[in-house]
Amino acid sequence: MSELAAKAEKLDAADELAGVREKFVLDTVSDHAADAAGVYLDGNSLGALPAAVPGRVEDVVRRQWGELRIRSWDESGWWTAPERIGDRIAPLVGAAAGQIVVGDSTSVNVFKALVGAVRLAGGPSSGRDEIVVDATTFPTDGYIAESAARMTGCTLRPVTPAEVPGVLGDRTAAVLLNHVDYRTGRLHDLPSLTAAVHAAGAVAVWDLCHSAGALPVGLDEHGVDLAVGCTYKYLNGGPGSPAYLYVRREVQDRFDSPLPGWNSHAEPFGMRASYEPAAGALRGRVGTPDILSMLALEAALDVWDGVSIEAVRAKSLALTDFFLECVTAYAPAGRVESVTPVAHTERGSQVALRCDDAGDVMKELIARGVVGDFRHPDVLRFGFTPLYVGFGEVERAARVLGETLRVRAGNG
Amino acid sequence: MSELAAKAEKLDAADELAGVREKFVLDTVSDHAADAAGVYLDGNSLGALPAAVPGRVEDVVRRQWGELRIRSWDESGWWTAPERIGDRIAPLVGAAAGQIVVGDSTSVNVFKALVGAVRLAGGPSSGRDEIVVDATTFPTDGYIAESAARMTGCTLRPVTPAEVPGVLGDRTAAVLLNHVDYRTGRLHDLPSLTAAVHAAGAVAVWDLCHSAGALPVGLDEHGVDLAVGCTYKYLNGGPGSPAYLYVRREVQDRFDSPLPGWNSHAEPFGMRASYEPAAGALRGRVGTPDILSMLALEAALDVWDGVSIEAVRAKSLALTDFFLECVTAYAPAGRVESVTPVAHTERGSQVALRCDDAGDVMKELIARGVVGDFRHPDVLRFGFTPLYVGFGEVERAARVLGETLRVRAGNG
Repeated sequence: MSELAAKAEKLDAADELAGVREKFVLDTVSDHAADAAGVYLDGNSLGALPAAVPGRVEDVVRRQWGELRIRSWDESGWWTAPERIGDRIAPLVGAAAGQIVVGDSTSVNVFKALVGAVRLAGGPSSGRDEIVVDATTFPTDGYIAESAARMTGCTLRPVTPAEVPGVLGDRTAAVLLNHVDYRTGRLHDLPSLTAAVHAAGAVAVWDLCHSAGALPVGLDEHGVDLAVGCTYKYLNGGPGSPAYLYVRREVQDRFDSPLPGWNSHAEPFGMRASYEPAAGALRGRVGTPDILSMLALEAALDVWDGVSIEAVRAKSLALTDFFLECVTAYAPAGRVESVTPVAHTERGSQVALRCDDAGDVMKELIARGVVGDFRHPDVLRFGFTPLYVGFGEVERAARVLGETLRVRAGNG
Repeated sequence: MSELAAKAEKLDAADELAGVREKFVLDTVSDHAADAAGVYLDGNSLGALPAAVPGRVEDVVRRQWGELRIRSWDESGWWTAPERIGDRIAPLVGAAAGQIVVGDSTSVNVFKALVGAVRLAGGPSSGRDEIVVDATTFPTDGYIAESAARMTGCTLRPVTPAEVPGVLGDRTAAVLLNHVDYRTGRLHDLPSLTAAVHAAGAVAVWDLCHSAGALPVGLDEHGVDLAVGCTYKYLNGGPGSPAYLYVRREVQDRFDSPLPGWNSHAEPFGMRASYEPAAGALRGRVGTPDILSMLALEAALDVWDGVSIEAVRAKSLALTDFFLECVTAYAPAGRVESVTPVAHTERGSQVALRCDDAGDVMKELIARGVVGDFRHPDVLRFGFTPLYVGFGEVERAARVLGETLRVRAGNG
């Protein structure tokens, strides 16, 4: 056994979250066939299936829909699912109850949040006519921000996160930032950036897609105004499971959604001709919630029972540290370069390695059971979900990567 | 056996769609216990469960998500589901392939369609600054239309459908109409109203929630520009299943969505900083599609194999005719009044009866297994899904209604 494999064994033995893996459906790893089992390092794209989900979904389909039918809106708690499940997500992102609703896609929620933010800030008529957005963000945030700017009469100002403090001013209405960069895995400084936005009198909107469920966010503590995130990465809600919107309690009564659907009406079944927004985070709802996906997510959140986000963060950093250590040991020198920050304070729960033939390398890794992501044009992206990834898997993934890089270099 | 029960038996025997009922999970009706079985007349709120759905959903959860995980976006056809399923809905609403995408809620699609319509019409800068909307519409359409007007610089003009032709003019940008009124069941004249909108140089947007799957719509034939609809009523997609957006081929290259998410980008995995819309109806997509609900819908659409929408319409009219006949026979004279038009050309697939104590009456009906809807303040709403509702059930429902009305009158 190599030194790193032995180290992995020790780390796994001391892992207080090791038992959580049993709550997921994953390849079975026997001691003898460990190398044949897959290593799933793509939970930051689609989280693995929690074992509680299939049975719950079957009950929703066969009994709640098939037998109770329309009665389930009331009797099975369908109608209140968006806020009930929001309250389940809340502690994971440092939010008290009553501030999160689940529903719609992340893109749609970015639109609600950004337009809502501009309106909270007073908008162009008050002189605040700029939306600042992370130019390195996941593209959809930028596209939606451009639409939000166009439709609110604002100008879009794309800058790097480092440039944000320098461009804030009297004209800034809203700032949209990603907590963790989807490509590099860089963790941005949410507390200080939020404070800078507030010092300029603007509204802070955070996209938590790559941080929620992987590290502490502290929405309430740091005074974030609005936030959005998806639930199919570190929250394991399933493919395309609904996203969520956080509306800070202090701004809820002034939150003015651009998508005022009947679900956010103060009296949805009153069927009133004129719109009157519900109190609280409910006004972030829009249309009929997508129940199958929503309740699959609810079942998926059961894996968090008894798990602290601080323990998850500690293991996440240990996993990425160890992966970087193994890659350094196994990969030919200079063959890959990490674009993920070394400093813990700047690192999310992924490692991104740059190499010219990243697309082909990832194909070979996947063929050998090590599943990560290729991100155009030259990035190998590996996500580490502390709830189900072990250190032995990390060592194996790095070893397979090293072998792949060596073979390709020899063939090249 | 009463005369009407005998008539129901004959109608059921001659029903060419009778066999389709077996494709659904419904209460089993034995001859002896017929009166104990439920009658589901709420398919216009939530369609019954198609028998093919549970197995398909289980496969999506356990195998596609649980085993293939991220590979399913490609290998299980997840990524292309919105347009693939759109093409399954297309023939039911008279559309050729390539014009419908599935995703998001109806409310969100109304927003895309209305803002897109105003932009197609040229908008306020071209002098077209009015959005005409059905004042009697399902409320969410009105709320969203108000937001679309506000965000495009238009004025909202709510009028009754009958008043629409009279208010159209040079200032009309877009007109949003419901094909069938959710409350009264009135079917509006889509061909002539669309022609009137076009004659004024404006863009026609139709909401098909209460018509798709119940009667022929003829989107292509009648030149409708944009349309939206839900899939959980007569299309039986399940609670909160995703809605759809129709973008007529001729306007697709000018359709400018207010929600330009990465899923509608010409090269979604290019991760480009600047937005370039995909060709075709794809540009109606926004964020990551909701796969569990989407593929449940796909399975639900199998019930349409070999079923023509014309046969569905013929049976729908026969069902509502027969229900009205039975209500006339069984209900105390003057106790209820139908607000659904008598003329076939003006009737959807529901019957709405007005009575002062509608709320209490519906509670008693539901307690006796006859499930309809109460619509505030005084409407009993009964929906007739021709794929699974039979004439014997119609007679029984009317009989139970008559008994309930008589007893309540006696007690009152």
